[in-house]
Amino acid sequence: MLDNPLLHLMNPKSIAIVGAGNNPAKMGTLHGLSIVKEGYQGKFYPIHPRDEMVLGHRAYPTVADLPEVPDLAMLIVPAEQALKLLAEFGQLGTKYAIVVTAGFRETGEEGRLKEERLKEIAAAYGIRFLGPNCIGIINSEILLNVTIMPGSGKQGKLGMVSQSGTYVTQTLPYLKQKGIHFSKAISVGNEADINLVDALEYLGQDEQTKAIALYLEGVKDGRRFIEVAQKITPRKPVILQYVGGSAAGARAGMSHTGSMAGPDFLYEGILKQAGIIQVHTVEELYSYGWTLAAQPPLRGKRMAVVTNSGGPGTAIANACEQGKLDVPTFSPQLQQQIRGHILPHASSANPVDLTYHLDAKMLTAVIPEIIMQSGEADGVIVHGGMSHGFMKVIYPHVRELLGDVTLEQFLGQLDTDFGKTVSLPWEYQIPLVASSFFGREDDYTAVYLDHGIPVFDSPEKAARAMAMLLRYKEIRERKQINRGELPAVSLQAQEIIAAATARQQKTLTEYESKQILAAYGIPVTGDRLAMSEEAAVAAALAAGFPVVLKGCAADVAHKTEKGLVHLGLTSAEEVRRAYRAVSQEAGGEIPVLVAEMLPKGRELLVGMTRYPAFGPCVMLGLGGVFAEAWRDITFRSAPLSDAEAEEMLQDIRAKAMIGEFRGMPAVDRAALVKILVTLGQLALLHPEIAEIDINPVMINGSLPVAVDALVVLA
Amino acid sequence: MLDNPLLHLMNPKSIAIVGAGNNPAKMGTLHGLSIVKEGYQGKFYPIHPRDEMVLGHRAYPTVADLPEVPDLAMLIVPAEQALKLLAEFGQLGTKYAIVVTAGFRETGEEGRLKEERLKEIAAAYGIRFLGPNCIGIINSEILLNVTIMPGSGKQGKLGMVSQSGTYVTQTLPYLKQKGIHFSKAISVGNEADINLVDALEYLGQDEQTKAIALYLEGVKDGRRFIEVAQKITPRKPVILQYVGGSAAGARAGMSHTGSMAGPDFLYEGILKQAGIIQVHTVEELYSYGWTLAAQPPLRGKRMAVVTNSGGPGTAIANACEQGKLDVPTFSPQLQQQIRGHILPHASSANPVDLTYHLDAKMLTAVIPEIIMQSGEADGVIVHGGMSHGFMKVIYPHVRELLGDVTLEQFLGQLDTDFGKTVSLPWEYQIPLVASSFFGREDDYTAVYLDHGIPVFDSPEKAARAMAMLLRYKEIRERKQINRGELPAVSLQAQEIIAAATARQQKTLTEYESKQILAAYGIPVTGDRLAMSEEAAVAAALAAGFPVVLKGCAADVAHKTEKGLVHLGLTSAEEVRRAYRAVSQEAGGEIPVLVAEMLPKGRELLVGMTRYPAFGPCVMLGLGGVFAEAWRDITFRSAPLSDAEAEEMLQDIRAKAMIGEFRGMPAVDRAALVKILVTLGQLALLHPEIAEIDINPVMINGSLPVAVDALVVLA
Repeated sequence: MLDNPLLHLMNPKSIAIVGAGNNPAKMGTLHGLSIVKEGYQGKFYPIHPRDEMVLGHRAYPTVADLPEVPDLAMLIVPAEQALKLLAEFGQLGTKYAIVVTAGFRETGEEGRLKEERLKEIAAAYGIRFLGPNCIGIINSEILLNVTIMPGSGKQGKLGMVSQSGTYVTQTLPYLKQKGIHFSKAISVGNEADINLVDALEYLGQDEQTKAIALYLEGVKDGRRFIEVAQKITPRKPVILQYVGGSAAGARAGMSHTGSMAGPDFLYEGILKQAGIIQVHTVEELYSYGWTLAAQPPLRGKRMAVVTNSGGPGTAIANACEQGKLDVPTFSPQLQQQIRGHILPHASSANPVDLTYHLDAKMLTAVIPEIIMQSGEADGVIVHGGMSHGFMKVIYPHVRELLGDVTLEQFLGQLDTDFGKTVSLPWEYQIPLVASSFFGREDDYTAVYLDHGIPVFDSPEKAARAMAMLLRYKEIRERKQINRGELPAVSLQAQEIIAAATARQQKTLTEYESKQILAAYGIPVTGDRLAMSEEAAVAAALAAGFPVVLKGCAADVAHKTEKGLVHLGLTSAEEVRRAYRAVSQEAGGEIPVLVAEMLPKGRELLVGMTRYPAFGPCVMLGLGGVFAEAWRDITFRSAPLSDAEAEEMLQDIRAKAMIGEFRGMPAVDRAALVKILVTLGQLALLHPEIAEIDINPVMINGSLPVAVDALVVLA
Repeated sequence: MLDNPLLHLMNPKSIAIVGAGNNPAKMGTLHGLSIVKEGYQGKFYPIHPRDEMVLGHRAYPTVADLPEVPDLAMLIVPAEQALKLLAEFGQLGTKYAIVVTAGFRETGEEGRLKEERLKEIAAAYGIRFLGPNCIGIINSEILLNVTIMPGSGKQGKLGMVSQSGTYVTQTLPYLKQKGIHFSKAISVGNEADINLVDALEYLGQDEQTKAIALYLEGVKDGRRFIEVAQKITPRKPVILQYVGGSAAGARAGMSHTGSMAGPDFLYEGILKQAGIIQVHTVEELYSYGWTLAAQPPLRGKRMAVVTNSGGPGTAIANACEQGKLDVPTFSPQLQQQIRGHILPHASSANPVDLTYHLDAKMLTAVIPEIIMQSGEADGVIVHGGMSHGFMKVIYPHVRELLGDVTLEQFLGQLDTDFGKTVSLPWEYQIPLVASSFFGREDDYTAVYLDHGIPVFDSPEKAARAMAMLLRYKEIRERKQINRGELPAVSLQAQEIIAAATARQQKTLTEYESKQILAAYGIPVTGDRLAMSEEAAVAAALAAGFPVVLKGCAADVAHKTEKGLVHLGLTSAEEVRRAYRAVSQEAGGEIPVLVAEMLPKGRELLVGMTRYPAFGPCVMLGLGGVFAEAWRDITFRSAPLSDAEAEEMLQDIRAKAMIGEFRGMPAVDRAALVKILVTLGQLALLHPEIAEIDINPVMINGSLPVAVDALVVLA
């Protein structure tokens, strides 16, 4: 963190801008207006070829004319000009820049070359810059907004990093409406220099930022992304939307910022590893991000639901349970306290349903406080708080019954002391979220939103927001991640790989593959390699019946379908028959592996694949011949700590079978964890290995053993 | 449909109301106001003990004083009074009623008894009624709204049936804001008489209703629900939110309307069977329901995405693919046409990204029309259409640059001819949905919403709305559902069950269970029952080695764990050893089954369970000893047509293995379908059977065979 460039770039004492003028239809002018109109106290230097004054500030014809060296240069000009200007700022001594200009890498080869020149110029002058093809930054702490839309003017708590400029500027009016305010927001654009991970790291250290939201189309340095996130997430929530997982998403992202995408299943595992909460719409990104930033942390999973109507209460309770939250029935004592305030046919059990009820304070303050005081709930969800919104809707119907009462007088009768309603979560340190079918036209919605209590327009979303707080509680309580040193390289493994490479083998044989695994301590079956029928029989006698006999040659995958695997051989005669069958299938004698036959049981799949941006990734899944059909797999980037490998065991849908299961003992988790960790280390030590597939890992008693393995070379 | 009571109840020529007065704080008054204020042309008869005039209409002190027999009676009075009044209306001759009153079955035993009395009174006078504990109805066709909130005044297209009153009244202002308008809406309350299925059936026939939305906490007559829905869904979309699937959801629902819930996995299958689209928030229910009601049907899956910013475009493309929609790259010809209108660095490939662009007509009309004309897209999603909203936000920043231009003049410069923008989907019969971060404050959002083009506040939601149109396309194109007659009852099966019942067996033995399956033509292994060691050996010789030997006694489940199953026996000696081992495990000689050993292969699980409200339900899932861990199962209610059973094969996650798979032939789908259909028939013919578990059904070559089976008696 010592010299994160954003520490400086986000806090300039002076800003020079090129591209802003006095024509409001120009984008650069809108950038400039945001800077001069929202309270920023630093110096503002427009550069303009003709105008003497720009946006009420003295303008300078060229960079060389500036009266001082500006801390930050902003460029909103065509690409060729941007290159030239960046050099001029470099000559002057400016060290930070935001290049808004588009038309670089995202447009193809010509643009990519321009981007390279931009980087070279920056490097030559020691300039650190955001962009190109970005919209800029917001630092609400110093009232600085350099984007094109007016900001909210409030000092917020949610930090935002986005690979789309839209999500730090076009959405500002929307966010203001929803009471969501940025602490800092950073549009990273093409990430030619300062990248998304730098921005994440910066916000991780930023005091004002209480939670971080990321909009992601693809990450470049995946490993650093994981490690930076892992440092942040134990003390600050990070929430993320990833949209690069589909072909169309990846294509659109590529043309947009040219970032590197990967399949959804990979990112799902990587984000879990990083301790990041994943969401799937931008609405969720903002609203749950804001909930995480603005509400107290959740300390348990017991939810209280308070409503004025049955449907939303039922929907909230249902969505709570789907989000792993409990909605426990309240104790008789608590129910009795509540019953003192509600109608006879109303429900006090939880959900508390006041039914049709005009006293919003009862719903939003009295009952919630009784519940918070009771200690029976870790979080409270309120649906239906309303007054002005309802009254305004009803007024045209009831006005004739009211005599001369105007709408203002009608609304004026209402109690507008919202003190308790909005202070409860902080007083009791218990999170509170709300839902309502009224927007800001209702004063309850407005006062909630303006005091950091999220209000959702669908009751289920309120429950899901609480579930996000629970997800973060789990992340906060994760086991510590301690990665050991890599072991020494195995000379034996090196030799096997070198020999196979010399023979131009693309894949290692099963025997070679298992020798490499064994060299790093991964348990494998006690295979014997036999080069003749007699040797096969001898091997079988040594192993003890029943045995397995498998053809073993390089470039033989899918042995089972090819008739090269013979299971459960119980006599020398059967071994001979199997040997001959293999020879026949293979069109001649090939070496065979003979091994003890493990009892039928649970089968897992363990593997390693290299992914761009993430390097070697370790996979765990259900194994056996049906593995392809299950597709029940999970990935993590190597190197892995024991704690991270242990989490993979929780990821697969059929995880029940890893525990004690139908008379079989629980799988030795430590042994399985060790296999996963070791596989990652092995991949890091041997970059010549492209892929490893261990299928199946069979569970022998409780111990996992590699029964078949395939190493593919790079 | 001949005499659906709602045909009359929804179209009254006169309404009497008890509980409405001139006090606007009373709920009954609000009901009355909605009737008299919104254009309903029928007669309105308030009954009031004291006031001569109520809501500007002559009031009558008692029911007997009414000047005519009203078509519909509305009761908003305490429960005891409601009983008395219903009888009085019955005496007068009124045939339809809405009982808003709460405090019946939903409150417990006492309330349940009151509800029984209510039903008795109604039956005695031939009254059909909605409720109790409901909020009433809306029939926009005759401008009738009897709920407590003002309606939108528009004749809508979305029919709504709700087990929560909230969703047909509290949400009316929210829906109006979103441009969503009901054709008819029905709050069914406790469904003491007219129920949810009646309402569904009514809306299925209603011309004005183009799509139906259901809010469901639990269904009572599940079978009728399915059959009614199956008649509707080939020609009209039905969309549903179910919230009864969790313990808390079920409890809340119970206290709310006392409806009958069931687990989520059951409802998921049932809704697929019914042809109903399931959603999980009320926002989805309304907004996707409205999309289905208001937009033309989707004819293919090719989506065009048109935006003014990269992030939303990428997010939409990604969400499209997740929803099984394609976002194909446009042809060079089409791209060239588009490029004529966009900036050089903008993208024409699809998503079309205009980038920052002030010409909203280009975005919302010109480019979409070029695409619609091209024939290269079946649906169009537009993000970012805006003008006034953006200008209003920008105005405070730019005003000083504009001279004396007022906000009104500033906005007045804009082109507000939206003709093409809003007519495209109907002109080309291609659905169009939009997203924007502006609400109604922007005229594009407003004009879209007011012309039946849904606008979502998160781009992904727009893509998901299109995915809903695709779901409905699939439903519309489902195979026809033809259920055959039930076969004749098997006397042999009857005898086996009777004998077991006489012996007070709770479960049938494997042998008996398979005999019953075989009696209905379900293929089972060729088992031989042997009562001695010698008989077992003889059976093995007859079957041919290798054989399986299993202990076979009533009330023996989980045979594998108990050591009662011996596989792969290849000699008489092995059979003897296995027989003795079984005797030892069982603590004495028990009958054994001896059967041919099927080769190891794919294993399925087929079963039957009876669920309240749905009767016998047939299950298909992955089988074998790990079935519990997979939990990859799907359910349908019996009787099943072949088409419905065939759909089950598509439901399981590991469906790939039902096809040709790793050298194994495709499973004989017709044979598997026959097993599922037959199992349902068998359950309907034998109500004495509580449950059937066939685990595994093994695939022998391509043919499914029941290898183990357990029949549990009721």
